[in-house]
Amino acid sequence: MDGTAIVLTHGLLNTEFAKTAHGLIRGTERYNILAIIDHKFAGMELGDLLGGEVPSIPIYDSIGTALNMIDEKIDYFIIGIAFAGGRIPLDILPIIKAAIQSGMSIVNGLHQFLNDIPELVSLAKSCDVSLIDIRKPKPKSALHYWTGKIRQVKTPKIAVLGTDSAIGKRTTCSLLTETAKYMGLHAEMIYTGQTGWLLGNKYGFILDATVNDFITGELEHAIVTCYRETNPQIIFMEGQSALRNPIGPCGGEFLISGQANGVILQHKPSREYYHDTEEMPVMIPSLQSEVALIKMFGVETLAITLNGDGLSKAQALRYKEEYEAELGIPVVFPLSDGVERIIEMLSEKYKLKVEKEFV
Amino acid sequence: MDGTAIVLTHGLLNTEFAKTAHGLIRGTERYNILAIIDHKFAGMELGDLLGGEVPSIPIYDSIGTALNMIDEKIDYFIIGIAFAGGRIPLDILPIIKAAIQSGMSIVNGLHQFLNDIPELVSLAKSCDVSLIDIRKPKPKSALHYWTGKIRQVKTPKIAVLGTDSAIGKRTTCSLLTETAKYMGLHAEMIYTGQTGWLLGNKYGFILDATVNDFITGELEHAIVTCYRETNPQIIFMEGQSALRNPIGPCGGEFLISGQANGVILQHKPSREYYHDTEEMPVMIPSLQSEVALIKMFGVETLAITLNGDGLSKAQALRYKEEYEAELGIPVVFPLSDGVERIIEMLSEKYKLKVEKEFV
Repeated sequence: MDGTAIVLTHGLLNTEFAKTAHGLIRGTERYNILAIIDHKFAGMELGDLLGGEVPSIPIYDSIGTALNMIDEKIDYFIIGIAFAGGRIPLDILPIIKAAIQSGMSIVNGLHQFLNDIPELVSLAKSCDVSLIDIRKPKPKSALHYWTGKIRQVKTPKIAVLGTDSAIGKRTTCSLLTETAKYMGLHAEMIYTGQTGWLLGNKYGFILDATVNDFITGELEHAIVTCYRETNPQIIFMEGQSALRNPIGPCGGEFLISGQANGVILQHKPSREYYHDTEEMPVMIPSLQSEVALIKMFGVETLAITLNGDGLSKAQALRYKEEYEAELGIPVVFPLSDGVERIIEMLSEKYKLKVEKEFV
Repeated sequence: MDGTAIVLTHGLLNTEFAKTAHGLIRGTERYNILAIIDHKFAGMELGDLLGGEVPSIPIYDSIGTALNMIDEKIDYFIIGIAFAGGRIPLDILPIIKAAIQSGMSIVNGLHQFLNDIPELVSLAKSCDVSLIDIRKPKPKSALHYWTGKIRQVKTPKIAVLGTDSAIGKRTTCSLLTETAKYMGLHAEMIYTGQTGWLLGNKYGFILDATVNDFITGELEHAIVTCYRETNPQIIFMEGQSALRNPIGPCGGEFLISGQANGVILQHKPSREYYHDTEEMPVMIPSLQSEVALIKMFGVETLAITLNGDGLSKAQALRYKEEYEAELGIPVVFPLSDGVERIIEMLSEKYKLKVEKEFV
């Protein structure tokens, strides 16, 4: 655990732009989250805003209120929102400065680096706090090329892919890992986004902040290191984007270079167009066609996990029945159903024996 | 034109490791290539070594010989070889130093940067020459995100993809562009590798040296800029790697984000395993399956271009007939047949009218 933290969502707490914050709220081993800062939702209940089971973390309107309400020292101020452009919105700069002046180190997952803003660098220095840009690329000497050593890994590797970005792949991947552990299996997760790092996952890398030539090697290195150090019974890989997402197609890395043994495919029935293309728009192909495409990469889709946002209970049930009939594989809503059914299916398929509780 | 240059191939001139040199030999608008430096092939004829039509550039055993034989000032020393690891082989360091001491600037397309080697930096400074690392990433402020403005481009965009890396995609893409120009069409090429830059192409970027999040945006920006500035009749995009190459799967970027209207697919029948995986090995899927996969990304393969290395004339003919029968599209060996047949097919398909000669 790195320390205590508060998370800024800046009026966007109930949107997909706050997915980093959502991950932190659902559980992080890196930080003790003391509060959310959101002027729009201050005083409301997280459970009402996000759905599913979430811990009861207070929402305050400002850093000032947080400092008044919280007795403990607050070590970190985490920017919990992200935009397509990856820039730091100008109107949060004063908030960041206030956090620095209150003695908090700033954690930033955006593409624009705090360390590139001289004003913040000198302020942080004078206040003796750090500016942590988690997407800052590693030095070249610390990066890996793909070598094929992945073939030594005997553990089944499941890629959690999706039909779009920002539909809950990371949440489902975490849930699969945690549920497997709870059910007595030694499961490990390979993170590939900044939220994964923020949540305290040990093995992984930030895919879209990595120079292209090293992506497959960094993935392989994370999997092989995880395998060697922990010898797990099953590995879940957090996917990124979608194979045909025009903003940044991704998926072959997990299927081919990561040698996925199977895919869990996250899908959001109410999402018609790729995230952030709504104004063009670019239509998301059918779930069936995604499963067929994954099959062309040599990997079977073993289950569908659905994001139920925007669906009535009746609609949700209808989609579930329809997809199960069409594809003949388990279809679950992880946030309401849990993923026990998928873990049972995987245990049977890969003959995994319950050893002990790993939570 | 930047100036005169000699190209180091270091005993690898006749191998795929020298593909950068091969591109430079076949024609560059950036440099006037005066000689190849290769101790193993000194004195031999390039045509005998590489096949196809290549200009007659002398091969010398060393920089010393080149300096003796060449009267002109040599401006640049280009490292014309590349390895999977991307490192600068230790045994060429003395050669690089000799070039610097002879007053040449060094052009390096490897992943390891000359500017990261203090010894070379100080030597170059004292000799008043430059160390040019062409894969050095652009500053973030100069990079682009994908925005969808590609949809404004009305020009047909043809992606030259391949079933593997190092099989001649770049050569075929250049040949298609040059042949189209020769046949009176205004064609432009979008380069995506360092060789493309070395050859003096104006529009493009170095894909595998780009941070993942900017790849689709840099591709879109190159295409849109090319379209706005030159309004061509047809655009050829240089593909990279292959959709299922474990070392670095690539292709969706061109098909989806670059909105390719059609694909020309480069294939090497004598290549059984993915380049640089021979020791594992990883088998290349069938040509038919690659065409089907591309179709799943929504794009038709319009022609097959074959690399005939390692085939007898009879074998070459058999593959050509077999693929044409199976796929029902033109199949050509660009280096021996030329690509006029493909340009004619594209002219007809996209109703392109000959305007004038563009060479």
